[in-house]
Amino acid sequence: MKKKKTQVCIIGSGPAGLLLSQLLHNEGISSIVIDRQSREHIEARVRAGVLEWGSVEALDEAGIGARMHKEGIPHAGFELAFNGDRHRIDIKGHTGKDVMIYGQTELTVDLIARRLEQAGEIVFSASDVVPLDVKSPSPKVRYCANGENYEIECDHIAGCDGFHGVSKSAIPDDVLKTFERVYPFGWLGLLVDKPPVSEELIYANHERGFALSSMRSKTRSRYYIQCSLNDKVEDWSDQRFWDEFSLRMGPQIAADLQTGDSFEKSIAPLRSFVAEPMRYGNLYLAGDAAHIVPPTGAKGLNLAIADVRVLSRAFVEHYKRNNDAYLDRYSEICLKRVWKVERFSWFMSMMLHHFPNMSAFEKRMQRAEFDHIVGSETASRSVAENYVGLPLEI
Amino acid sequence: MKKKKTQVCIIGSGPAGLLLSQLLHNEGISSIVIDRQSREHIEARVRAGVLEWGSVEALDEAGIGARMHKEGIPHAGFELAFNGDRHRIDIKGHTGKDVMIYGQTELTVDLIARRLEQAGEIVFSASDVVPLDVKSPSPKVRYCANGENYEIECDHIAGCDGFHGVSKSAIPDDVLKTFERVYPFGWLGLLVDKPPVSEELIYANHERGFALSSMRSKTRSRYYIQCSLNDKVEDWSDQRFWDEFSLRMGPQIAADLQTGDSFEKSIAPLRSFVAEPMRYGNLYLAGDAAHIVPPTGAKGLNLAIADVRVLSRAFVEHYKRNNDAYLDRYSEICLKRVWKVERFSWFMSMMLHHFPNMSAFEKRMQRAEFDHIVGSETASRSVAENYVGLPLEI
Repeated sequence: MKKKKTQVCIIGSGPAGLLLSQLLHNEGISSIVIDRQSREHIEARVRAGVLEWGSVEALDEAGIGARMHKEGIPHAGFELAFNGDRHRIDIKGHTGKDVMIYGQTELTVDLIARRLEQAGEIVFSASDVVPLDVKSPSPKVRYCANGENYEIECDHIAGCDGFHGVSKSAIPDDVLKTFERVYPFGWLGLLVDKPPVSEELIYANHERGFALSSMRSKTRSRYYIQCSLNDKVEDWSDQRFWDEFSLRMGPQIAADLQTGDSFEKSIAPLRSFVAEPMRYGNLYLAGDAAHIVPPTGAKGLNLAIADVRVLSRAFVEHYKRNNDAYLDRYSEICLKRVWKVERFSWFMSMMLHHFPNMSAFEKRMQRAEFDHIVGSETASRSVAENYVGLPLEI
Repeated sequence: MKKKKTQVCIIGSGPAGLLLSQLLHNEGISSIVIDRQSREHIEARVRAGVLEWGSVEALDEAGIGARMHKEGIPHAGFELAFNGDRHRIDIKGHTGKDVMIYGQTELTVDLIARRLEQAGEIVFSASDVVPLDVKSPSPKVRYCANGENYEIECDHIAGCDGFHGVSKSAIPDDVLKTFERVYPFGWLGLLVDKPPVSEELIYANHERGFALSSMRSKTRSRYYIQCSLNDKVEDWSDQRFWDEFSLRMGPQIAADLQTGDSFEKSIAPLRSFVAEPMRYGNLYLAGDAAHIVPPTGAKGLNLAIADVRVLSRAFVEHYKRNNDAYLDRYSEICLKRVWKVERFSWFMSMMLHHFPNMSAFEKRMQRAEFDHIVGSETASRSVAENYVGLPLEI
């Protein structure tokens, strides 16, 4: 068993783990990042694409925002649509801020490149990753790479390994409380190298189901439609997708749609999930390891970034000022905001999807939510404030 | 069969029917009001007690606001509570307006007195009330009173006879669409001649169920607790009520509670209901005949007043200016606002009650709604705007 040593061992090299490693490095705190996937796999994963104002700030503070500012697209608003009626949420007008369109995939590439440039250690393709002794003052992470067994001794473990990761399972069942809602449908998403049908995102409720017009750049579109969980990607030819997407978006939008051959197509389930607490001994969960939101509202990546902002600050206080108050309150600080963001993601999901067995009254309540937002400056402002990102109270 | 004639025959002498009759009288339009109940019964019914700003305006315009302004209590805010945590909604601060505490019972007494003073005709204790020929230019209402049969010939019929009234059934099944949600609990309400425990209303979510501290005057309190639909009033001694109410309100509020012998105690179910359209031929539904809201949010009486404001305006346009545009759009104008008010009442009900079989996630969503309102000026403002009353767009 080969031994290594670091201050913070980070399990998972998604944006949460990588950004945490970068923020710690910037403050002179050592870390090692371990992931069971290969670098190629990680850099190719298609994920979210909307960054809150505060996330952009965090990436700037970490010093890795250069390409994002060059290639990303600031958006000052987005649209809600309901059976063809459209309403723009003026994010900039309501909040003075905007959001940034920049793919999580690109952000991950940037973060990995910077960590490796600065001789940061990222272990890719690790197997049998296990956090150990997380309640002791010297926890460990064991893993296997290239046929060798390793053990990293550290002060703290950051569990940034997603919903299916091992970190969460290091918290005993009688301590871990979980809260979950599984939605009875999925999102079928497609990437196509055509300019997006609209400059801003459009979240649409149609009686045939939800649809979302999104993008990764000015020439790459990301479109989604709600689908059955029984559907398979093979059931959906590009043509069938374009037909259904056009129907749900309505003729006005469909008229401008540039279709083409998709180069990625996948179905994702929708889930709301929260694990409490987010700290156990010297193990700290961050990002999807601790919570999942349905993608309606674009909050998953942003919640992960918010967590590691709190966590990096807490580690800095611990190492630089011998102050553990922030580590002790890490779970509490994060969860307070997490639940608010869960609420917004749930609210957006409930308003915009077709649910099996909805009563006629419930359908009208969805429409009334839309009409309330359309008719009330205050209700629109509330959506804008949540979408651009709630304040981070550290 | 004795015959009578009037311009508008109004079925139902609740606040909707009486106020409509008054507004029409003020414009020189004749009406007869018919009710199957006795005057004594109607004047003794215990009902709602919070008037929106716009409702106060309407009563002033109708010229029947004098006693309301003398005896009613303007409220500039109300409280939300969640397992002991409290948050004041500053209605006046957010909207510049306030609401008025004045019992529907008192308002009904005022309206009946004024109509009779002005020689308005109200037929009490009528039986076998039937609207006829509502699609023809000369509809009729038949009824029986004091053993005599009557027929009123009129131009229009206003169906203001509540959820269980006959008016709605004059609309054929293939025209009438209904939307309904029945909530799986009731409200046990009690009246007591003691000063209210708090100057403003308190709507409380407690893990044992909802509770509401309300009032009719500075010396008469109206308190409610959520109860099972299987409960009977006899199951709830005053002492049992006070114990449960105190638990749900929490020790801080309970310490100030002045208990006493109740002089009214009843259980009411909670329902959301909308009938579309609100016009059929020369029949116009108004108030509870067309829609029911759960009482969380105090909207039932106010919706009824809003309907008759629209309807009286439409009749004035018809009789005075030969303009039927408002009558033609009556249903559309009312329903647009009705659905928004249904949304608010549903939202408040969903946030504040304990629902059987709620998941742990759903409980946290309720808490997150409360925390969102507490933490967001905009979310509080939205509640205040809805509570004080959405604008009436006639």
